[in-house]
Amino acid sequence: MIKFVSQIPKESIVDIHAYVKATPTKVESCTQKDVELSILEVWVVSTAKAQLPLLIEDASRPITDDAGLSTVNQDTRLDNRVLDLRTPANHAIFKLESGVCQLFRETLAQQGFIEIHTPKIISAASEGGANVFTVSYFKNNAYLAQSPQLYKQMAIAADFDKVYTVGAVFRAEDSNTHRHLTEFVGLDLEMAFKYHYHEVMHTIANTLTQIFKRLKNEFQVEIAAVNVQYPCEEFTFLEPPLILEFFTAVDMLKEAGVDIDYYDDLSTPNEKLLGKIVKAKYSTDFYVLDKYPLAVRPFYTMPDPLNAGYSNSYDMFMRGEEILSGAQRIHDANFLTERAQEHGVELDKIKSYIEAFQYGCPPHAGGGIGMERVVMLFLGLDNIRKTSLFPRDPKRLTP
Amino acid sequence: MIKFVSQIPKESIVDIHAYVKATPTKVESCTQKDVELSILEVWVVSTAKAQLPLLIEDASRPITDDAGLSTVNQDTRLDNRVLDLRTPANHAIFKLESGVCQLFRETLAQQGFIEIHTPKIISAASEGGANVFTVSYFKNNAYLAQSPQLYKQMAIAADFDKVYTVGAVFRAEDSNTHRHLTEFVGLDLEMAFKYHYHEVMHTIANTLTQIFKRLKNEFQVEIAAVNVQYPCEEFTFLEPPLILEFFTAVDMLKEAGVDIDYYDDLSTPNEKLLGKIVKAKYSTDFYVLDKYPLAVRPFYTMPDPLNAGYSNSYDMFMRGEEILSGAQRIHDANFLTERAQEHGVELDKIKSYIEAFQYGCPPHAGGGIGMERVVMLFLGLDNIRKTSLFPRDPKRLTP
Repeated sequence: MIKFVSQIPKESIVDIHAYVKATPTKVESCTQKDVELSILEVWVVSTAKAQLPLLIEDASRPITDDAGLSTVNQDTRLDNRVLDLRTPANHAIFKLESGVCQLFRETLAQQGFIEIHTPKIISAASEGGANVFTVSYFKNNAYLAQSPQLYKQMAIAADFDKVYTVGAVFRAEDSNTHRHLTEFVGLDLEMAFKYHYHEVMHTIANTLTQIFKRLKNEFQVEIAAVNVQYPCEEFTFLEPPLILEFFTAVDMLKEAGVDIDYYDDLSTPNEKLLGKIVKAKYSTDFYVLDKYPLAVRPFYTMPDPLNAGYSNSYDMFMRGEEILSGAQRIHDANFLTERAQEHGVELDKIKSYIEAFQYGCPPHAGGGIGMERVVMLFLGLDNIRKTSLFPRDPKRLTP
Repeated sequence: MIKFVSQIPKESIVDIHAYVKATPTKVESCTQKDVELSILEVWVVSTAKAQLPLLIEDASRPITDDAGLSTVNQDTRLDNRVLDLRTPANHAIFKLESGVCQLFRETLAQQGFIEIHTPKIISAASEGGANVFTVSYFKNNAYLAQSPQLYKQMAIAADFDKVYTVGAVFRAEDSNTHRHLTEFVGLDLEMAFKYHYHEVMHTIANTLTQIFKRLKNEFQVEIAAVNVQYPCEEFTFLEPPLILEFFTAVDMLKEAGVDIDYYDDLSTPNEKLLGKIVKAKYSTDFYVLDKYPLAVRPFYTMPDPLNAGYSNSYDMFMRGEEILSGAQRIHDANFLTERAQEHGVELDKIKSYIEAFQYGCPPHAGGGIGMERVVMLFLGLDNIRKTSLFPRDPKRLTP
């Protein structure tokens, strides 16, 4: 039998018929230390190829291990994702990711949100944006939705009051960075408010805080398993979450010596630096930046009625990287037309978007969260390809 | 004030500042019968156009009402979906639909399933099928996934054991029927089993039964609201669910005078007829048909080892219409190659599919449920466009 068993290739699936017996001395090489199997029969259910493209042992090795031992580079991992996903860290990452979605939905459902499903195939690049994928749709062309925003807003105009949707969003950007994917999962929500868009901004920020809190409590085993391979400082956040105004952030950057104007957008390096300054000052890896300059936001963003040049919009950050962009949206068809013209957006292309608001629509705000970014940044991982089961980027469409 | 108020177009959004007062006599025209508002101020928050493309009153009218009163046809409804969605029946339909997804996930999570997210953009029509939409992907072509099947199976090969995914699936079929959409929401699951694929088939059938049961208990108000406009016989099911073998179904059809062979696939009219026969005999609108003829199923379906010509596959039906197709999948790369060749599938096109199984994979089975069909058939509605928030078919891409 030992000869037979020794010839079964690694990673094969076997059925074992055996007695469970107490061991006289602890088994040091297993997690189950006090019993062992006394084998009667071994059956091979599924044989793996003898030559594996990567060894699970190498793929599981902590990044802090001494140099010299084999490691597996990212492309080899992704090319052989089925094997790569068998590592303890990967199992933990995707269990935690499953948890992020579940907690997002649960937290919103408790507040009266309902789940909707929005179309991914759309007839026009409705937000007036570029970077959309084109689809051959029978005899015409169509596009893949860059976000469910218009449809969430139409649900609000249809009196659904509070909605969320979890689904694929597509970006035809040729960005080959650690944090861009061409297809990712959007955790999107939209909500009518009574008095002020801050009702919505606080709902979103509190929802994220609630998710972080429950992840820490309910996914300790998974967080620990990821940390074994990818050690990282624990993710920190405040309750209630820290909210800063944009101009305050600019002041903080100026104080740190950055040459920036109050109406400039934040560059990625400035966002990173701001994250470090905020962390040092407030001990939080999560915060909200409210009141962006109007000029750096899309045409449908509601201007701040009290501060010319600013808008009722916000971004949210984890470890200095943006995970959500949101705003109060203009709910009046005429004002929307006016703002689109000021932005030089062709009215033809956003006709159906504008029409959605001509039969009455309550004031509303919302936002979209990148799920893979939340998981990457919560766990302190260095690449978004680690938190997408089968990542898609400009150079990768397989497996 | 009355003059001002009477000039506000219907469907506008208003803020009202008022006292709530007890009424001396019941208000018959409102659902709130014992109090009324004594108005101090009325503010128009969002004005609707004076001319509406449809009246909510007409769009809400029960289909059983006497002829002569205005109704709204389906295309007018869908062209003006934001208004159409404001009817009580539509609000109820989409609340119940939100419930279907939530109950699907909850029931599976309780059984140890984890949620995964699979890519929608794929490099090849991996199941060897036609009817895929083509996407321009930078300088190459890609396709929209017709189902998450390969990716669910890869998750099983990666040892995730039990997985589900809820997401958009795409079918480039030029089918203009009451039950086909080009984009719909798939409720998909896949599960490794220990001894027999029936473990999986029962898990799926019991999950659906559990969903039906909880919908009846937890969505009574919504079901009643839909019934006001679209009256329908209550949906029935058995516990445990009824499971019939394919050859038994053929016998039942033969007995009813249908000219059909034991190895023929079921036509849509025969499925409908079978649904009626089963309902009359067993008083259930839900049942499972197990052991389809091998020849009518895709190449990756596991043949029945005991009955040549049959397979370890099943469909599930509601009111005589198919809502799920599923099977044990072949988990051995060599056998899969053999079966693909027998089916005349080009091996080139399914290379990555076959490769997924060469490093060990447990025996597994699964299935995919069409969410919109479940909601349509549970509520006894006549068209799937009623259960898709913004339906997509060969002729409709907007709004």
